[in-house]
Formats: sequence, structure tokens, C-alpha cells
Amino acid sequence: PAAAQFQKPEDAVKYRKAGFTLMAAHFGRLGAMAQGRAPFDAASATANAEIVASLSKLPFAGFVEGTSGTEKGQPKPNVWSDRAKFDEGARKMQEEVAKLAAAAKAGPDALKAAFGAAAGTCKNCHDNFRVQ
Amino acid sequence: PAAAQFQKPEDAVKYRKAGFTLMAAHFGRLGAMAQGRAPFDAASATANAEIVASLSKLPFAGFVEGTSGTEKGQPKPNVWSDRAKFDEGARKMQEEVAKLAAAAKAGPDALKAAFGAAAGTCKNCHDNFRVQ
Repeated sequence: PAAAQFQKPEDAVKYRKAGFTLMAAHFGRLGAMAQGRAPFDAASATANAEIVASLSKLPFAGFVEGTSGTEKGQPKPNVWSDRAKFDEGARKMQEEVAKLAAAAKAGPDALKAAFGAAAGTCKNCHDNFRVQ
Repeated sequence: PAAAQFQKPEDAVKYRKAGFTLMAAHFGRLGAMAQGRAPFDAASATANAEIVASLSKLPFAGFVEGTSGTEKGQPKPNVWSDRAKFDEGARKMQEEVAKLAAAAKAGPDALKAAFGAAAGTCKNCHDNFRVQ
């Protein structure tokens, strides 16, 4: 019931890009800790993980019909022609990012493992559904 | 501890704009119900209100030094020269949007009042700190 709705396709595109921009910023902070580029901080990791999990539900409402593209980073037409697979990829990502906060609380090794699993779900959809 | 951090000023600008884009999309759905342009739906209103409240904490990390502008919609220099007032405006907005979910549960009249109060806090900062 909270899914965004859009008057124009370009509003949907702007919305979904905004959602991924925010997710990337906070997921990136987890990545820095998971990969040793920043010191592990359980409180910060947990807070960022909770934000990522919350944000992960938003952007997919923005994948409205007629908004595929051919430029790098744009969604390919198979987002819509193979929508069940796309939706399953989104669901899998949401499932993995929902585990990040508990992993962050458990410690740096758990965060590293959970971050890797979540990042894999990002890459999977990018490889399949995003123009390279 | 969850506040985003940025390598470059333009990343901070992109981040804060993304945050306001998402907030506007979900706040707009509340507005449509509050103003009678869409039927009142308590579940949808509550869900959107919770998203707005969660998002309201994010964008202000993106107001890093050196990112004011002179074009319409850009922040004026007084965001930084009068930072305490700006921060107080942000805090007031966060306080008002945190009341939206309870108002949505209470019904359309409560939502209308709470939406108006929250929208007033948006306008207040826009009038003072954003290039018209």
C-alpha cells in the first residue's frame, strides 16, 4: 500500500534512481567496514543496515512500463518481458539486506559474509537486467 | 552513526536530492489524501507516513560545506552561515513528520491537520534557505 505512484514515466525513473542512490550510499558504508577500508563500528553498521533494509522496498515501484533504455545503467527491456525473474531478484535482494542488521550486531566477520551475500544479489540483477 | 559520508561534494548533493525526491513522492501521497484528491486509505497513509518519517532523517548529511548555489532549488549560503537555524528547521520537520503515522491511523481529519503542520515546516525552510 506504500508503493509510490507516478503521474509521468520520468517521475518514476527519477524516483527509482533516487532510491538506488540512497541505498548505495548506506550500503557503501557497510562495504567499507566489511572490506576493511573503514574501522568496524557495530552501532554505525547496524544503523546503516537498517536504513538499507528499509530503502530496499522502495525503488521497484519505479520500474513502470515504457522506461527501459539503451544507455549504460538503464534497465533493459527484459525487466518487463521477464518480470517474474526480475521481481524474484528484487525479492532475493530484499531478503539478503534484511539480514545485514543482525550480522552487523554479531560482528565484523558476520557482517562481511552478509555483505557479500547481499552484494551478490545486487550484481545478479545488474548483470541480467541493466545495460552494461 | 548512520549519517552518510561523501568522497566528493557532488556525491553529497546527489544524495540529498535523492532523499528529498523520495520524501516528496511519499509525502505527496499523503497530501493527495489530505486534500481529497485521492480516497483516504488508513493502511496506505500509515505506510507512507512511516516511510516519510524514516526518510526524513537522511538528507541533511548531504548539506556539506561548499555546496550552495544560485539556481532555483539550490541551497542558499545561509544554510551554512546560519546553520543552527537550518538544523532547527530540519529538526522541526522531523518532529512533525513523525506524527503523521499516528494521525493516519486516527483518520482523515487528523491526517489533514498533521499533513498541514508538516508541510508548513517544509515551506518554512524552503522560504528561508532555498533559492526561489
